[in-house]
Amino acid sequence: MEFRIDSIDGNARACTIKTEHSEIKTPIFMPVGTAAAVKSLDAIDMMEILDAPIILGNTYHLYLRPGDEIISKLGGLHGFSGYKRSFLTDSGGFQAFSLGDNVKFTDEGIWFKSHIDGSKHFFSPEKVIDIEYNLNSDIMMVLDDLIALPNTKERIKKSIERTTEWAYRSLVHHVNRGKKNNLFAIIQGGTDFEFRRISAESLVSLEYKGYTFDGFAIGGLSVGEENQLMYDTIEATTPYMPKDKPRYLMGVGTPEDIIEAVERGVDMFDCVMPTRNARNGYLFTTFGTLRIKNAKYKLDESPIDPKCNCYTCRNFSRAYLNHLFKAKELTYFRLASIHNLHYYLNFVKEIREAILEGRFKEYKKEFYSLRAMNSLEI
Amino acid sequence: MEFRIDSIDGNARACTIKTEHSEIKTPIFMPVGTAAAVKSLDAIDMMEILDAPIILGNTYHLYLRPGDEIISKLGGLHGFSGYKRSFLTDSGGFQAFSLGDNVKFTDEGIWFKSHIDGSKHFFSPEKVIDIEYNLNSDIMMVLDDLIALPNTKERIKKSIERTTEWAYRSLVHHVNRGKKNNLFAIIQGGTDFEFRRISAESLVSLEYKGYTFDGFAIGGLSVGEENQLMYDTIEATTPYMPKDKPRYLMGVGTPEDIIEAVERGVDMFDCVMPTRNARNGYLFTTFGTLRIKNAKYKLDESPIDPKCNCYTCRNFSRAYLNHLFKAKELTYFRLASIHNLHYYLNFVKEIREAILEGRFKEYKKEFYSLRAMNSLEI
Repeated sequence: MEFRIDSIDGNARACTIKTEHSEIKTPIFMPVGTAAAVKSLDAIDMMEILDAPIILGNTYHLYLRPGDEIISKLGGLHGFSGYKRSFLTDSGGFQAFSLGDNVKFTDEGIWFKSHIDGSKHFFSPEKVIDIEYNLNSDIMMVLDDLIALPNTKERIKKSIERTTEWAYRSLVHHVNRGKKNNLFAIIQGGTDFEFRRISAESLVSLEYKGYTFDGFAIGGLSVGEENQLMYDTIEATTPYMPKDKPRYLMGVGTPEDIIEAVERGVDMFDCVMPTRNARNGYLFTTFGTLRIKNAKYKLDESPIDPKCNCYTCRNFSRAYLNHLFKAKELTYFRLASIHNLHYYLNFVKEIREAILEGRFKEYKKEFYSLRAMNSLEI
Repeated sequence: MEFRIDSIDGNARACTIKTEHSEIKTPIFMPVGTAAAVKSLDAIDMMEILDAPIILGNTYHLYLRPGDEIISKLGGLHGFSGYKRSFLTDSGGFQAFSLGDNVKFTDEGIWFKSHIDGSKHFFSPEKVIDIEYNLNSDIMMVLDDLIALPNTKERIKKSIERTTEWAYRSLVHHVNRGKKNNLFAIIQGGTDFEFRRISAESLVSLEYKGYTFDGFAIGGLSVGEENQLMYDTIEATTPYMPKDKPRYLMGVGTPEDIIEAVERGVDMFDCVMPTRNARNGYLFTTFGTLRIKNAKYKLDESPIDPKCNCYTCRNFSRAYLNHLFKAKELTYFRLASIHNLHYYLNFVKEIREAILEGRFKEYKKEFYSLRAMNSLEI
């Protein structure tokens, strides 16, 4: 993986990541393609309509169905789904933790039962890497020791120690396998700044046969804590992350969360919010959130966002989408998902331009004043 | 509406219909866009990916939701949905009959309660035409008196008499309104050949101020009768339908039904089968029907139909579709619907070419021998 910083504005960074499959300009938002498909969309939509350079696949889901060995035989995620750009895959730990039954964390790994058929499975750091090889992920996340927040100091301490231990096992396994896929470690530590520092420093210092991690992620945030506490935790963590490697904030978040994290030095994001909110009728716009089921859109011929030039806004009206949503037409889901993902992808593109032009602070101010208007729902 | 016969081969016809919005080469299959959207697809899909010249909208559904007056204000079905080619709309009678509650047929029209909110409504021949004006349908079907089959001779006789009476009221109303939309009458009569002849002759003879119907449909078939009886009924009816006007077989059917009806002189078809079967995992191919959930497709990298060049077959494998179907991914529905509709649209295009080249019988024979192989499911 190649990585270079194109520009820095305050702590906000505009970088370029080059994997085997695509060039990624940061800050970047990665749409979530849980089961090798971003919900309601296909690979052509992602490449030609949305022009997304990287999407995320969920290791837990793909391991259970269709199975990583099947995906391997079909050319990895790229061959299987037809999406020829980059995939980042999580470790599956978070989904095993949140979706599986009878979940049990041991020093060796995570035991869980499939939410699909109740079958029993075990994820170890090494096994997760092997699954991610089968998926041929461009960026593989290590297995980490997740905990619910708030939690005891003792359990958080155990979590960061085990996370470091597992990260080291992952690195050793990866170096010994000699594969080219990139490996990212995950910083834990809850909202305790000191634990975050320790977790970051210990992961950054890991090294095996001269190899270190290709990037670092901040995990375990956006799990119910106050927004400001999340921002403060990020701010307390990024100074301990290497400047010359990508920084990824996992599972975050709202547009506001993203711009706050970029300001604190984060480069990469993923979240189900744009696609899930789309399916539930919440559409992102420059001027705030639009609830498409609102009766006032019944006769509204304008596009979702007059400032948007996405496929949906170019071709369809609020009135038509209001109708499709209320009639529960399948057509609605794709059109709404395209719009919300376009909003996110265009948003990070605008942030990048602002950073490159040294006007990040002005851009952020303007972003907030427009979003706060929420003029669409007045 | 312009209509011309391009070629005749036996009783099979290749014609051209020209409406205000598109040119339609027959035989033609019209995808069903019940609620102003073909399920899972949008107007761009229908025009650019499938190149369908005409789709069907359901008057009953659109009248109830979003309401025909709303659609009228938004530029009719064309402006509302973004599909700029032709729409044919049914009369709503069949859906009121099959979906509504407390349905009551009187000499004046049909009383029914909405399946959406239980509200009470009345469809008269004149009211249905007014709704179809609001939809700005290119081809409007008249309200007809539907009956379940089998039924008593007496009730079938009443049905064709009332259907003729309502058709005349529709024609009078339409001529007096002076609108340019085209109006088709519907022949009833169950599977009784004599009633079909009487119904056809009486509708064809209707005339008001020099105006007659723009086309004729065969209604009330494919409701559970044997295939051969349906084919025989069509064969007993088409000789009484004008040669110089389009002939439309409503709600039919399988590819086999379509080719049999074309052989007996029918030009136009509509059916939910390609889209509904797609959603249920049944995919049409040159070689028979493919059940995508079948475990043998798990590792199958070939497209649904090796002879198909549709968007789905060009980009995605059976293995990927098998996975999407089993994972209940929304993405599946659009890809499968595109394939099945492409199959139908390509099928009628091939039939047309065969008619133009005077080899309809050979084409039909080859079609049956390939379909009968059902080699995919052996």
